[in-house]
Amino acid sequence: MRFVRLGEPGAERPAVLDDAGQAHDLTPLTPDIDGRFLAGDGIAAVRRALAAGDLPRVETAGVRLGPPLARPGAVLCVGMNYAAHAAESGGAPPEQPVIFFKTPNTVVGAFDEVLIPRGAEKTDWEVELAVVIGRRARYLDSPDEALSYVAGYTVSNDVSERAFQTEHSGGQWSKGKCCETFNPLGPYLVTADEVPDPQALRLRSFVNGEVRQDSSTADMIFPVAELVHHLSQYLVLEPGDVINTGTPEGVALSGRFPYLAAGDVMEIEIEGLGRQRQVLAAA
Amino acid sequence: MRFVRLGEPGAERPAVLDDAGQAHDLTPLTPDIDGRFLAGDGIAAVRRALAAGDLPRVETAGVRLGPPLARPGAVLCVGMNYAAHAAESGGAPPEQPVIFFKTPNTVVGAFDEVLIPRGAEKTDWEVELAVVIGRRARYLDSPDEALSYVAGYTVSNDVSERAFQTEHSGGQWSKGKCCETFNPLGPYLVTADEVPDPQALRLRSFVNGEVRQDSSTADMIFPVAELVHHLSQYLVLEPGDVINTGTPEGVALSGRFPYLAAGDVMEIEIEGLGRQRQVLAAA
Repeated sequence: MRFVRLGEPGAERPAVLDDAGQAHDLTPLTPDIDGRFLAGDGIAAVRRALAAGDLPRVETAGVRLGPPLARPGAVLCVGMNYAAHAAESGGAPPEQPVIFFKTPNTVVGAFDEVLIPRGAEKTDWEVELAVVIGRRARYLDSPDEALSYVAGYTVSNDVSERAFQTEHSGGQWSKGKCCETFNPLGPYLVTADEVPDPQALRLRSFVNGEVRQDSSTADMIFPVAELVHHLSQYLVLEPGDVINTGTPEGVALSGRFPYLAAGDVMEIEIEGLGRQRQVLAAA
Repeated sequence: MRFVRLGEPGAERPAVLDDAGQAHDLTPLTPDIDGRFLAGDGIAAVRRALAAGDLPRVETAGVRLGPPLARPGAVLCVGMNYAAHAAESGGAPPEQPVIFFKTPNTVVGAFDEVLIPRGAEKTDWEVELAVVIGRRARYLDSPDEALSYVAGYTVSNDVSERAFQTEHSGGQWSKGKCCETFNPLGPYLVTADEVPDPQALRLRSFVNGEVRQDSSTADMIFPVAELVHHLSQYLVLEPGDVINTGTPEGVALSGRFPYLAAGDVMEIEIEGLGRQRQVLAAA
């Protein structure tokens, strides 16, 4: 199943798309798609209600798609998780996952405007596979059980301002990762059962129609199961938390492409998870 | 006024202490002390209700004090904000504020147990002045207006695992900052009107009754007003967000004191804001 949230910012209503792509209202079942919904076996309840024909249809034409998850408790990001991207960024592949954070209020819809911050010099794109946690994960025993803690997957654009990230904050990256609108998420939250192998997905990004990134999640240094297991040794993952799993090579930081400017168009997509499109504007 | 939240974890009820220290139930006015309450002029409403004698008394004896703020949207932390601590950590004083994050689910009550993570080698204390944001702050014009965005202040223990912080995550500190129970907060949220000068507060920490840190917020490199203004240039601060403003010298990382072990007792306090006490236990 694919979950969406329909409506203006702050007033989105949850819905689910059936196999034919028709949207059905979820407000009879839940006020929103969030950690509480995911932890309470909400996905199974929706599956039953959809099969029983209990959910009213809703129109999507002309309606904004919000992020497919209400504001998460935490947005974890994994840095340098593709070897070729680590190299283009001037680093060696990490020996353990490197983590940093985006503030949850950076999350916007997949087609919302992205703002270039005031004073920005180096605003950059990053297509990433985002993992949405479905159950509380604390000190997991092994990576083998980790994927059972994943509710689903979505597309994430881990927008970054490289000067803020590396020159303005003593090397702590988050200052260039938390600017307003810096995490377009969606369009869909695709349930984990529809993604049998999260390590076999092509992911691409485009700027003004020209391809920038074109890789596969097969190239991750630390695959999703290892990331979830590893992170659970250092912190408690909560239902509704998002993990941005890192970006492959092909960003502007490499020096091969110009940074973003107002009016540019970013498009990013992941096989089976859909496509985003954002226009850049000045903050 | 001083706000508290009374009750077991996840079931706390909001209350306010009057000038005599007597607690009054706030549930007739608000379901909780959170960003929505602070943004909606909740503090002024409580002041009026307290003056009018409209709030029923509640008993506090034997009742757990939870964190004085329901789970914040973001917990921002400022690193190296006292020159002597930067020096004892092996660094130079930063030229701009350095920021990193704790996950909001690290926040616990001021007297709750703190867990030493599995595999930990270097668990450390950090007394800090915590700032609670009361209004949405985005691109503030100057530090002069910044304190009007602050709802109040509280005591924060920015518990840290130094091996996780500096050796396990490629230099990105958050991995050693987000372990379960790693942010005791409270006991009170003290409203900003009761803290006329946040840069003139003595702050101290003790381990097993021996003093460790003893400094003043006068020694901050970047005072609260500058921090709020500066951060608002890089991200949007939301009502209910917490800023841990950095710790002074006297932590175990300095090499002058042993790291924490199960059974140790941490006490930290800030002049006018109260005192915390936590017993360490194994996770």
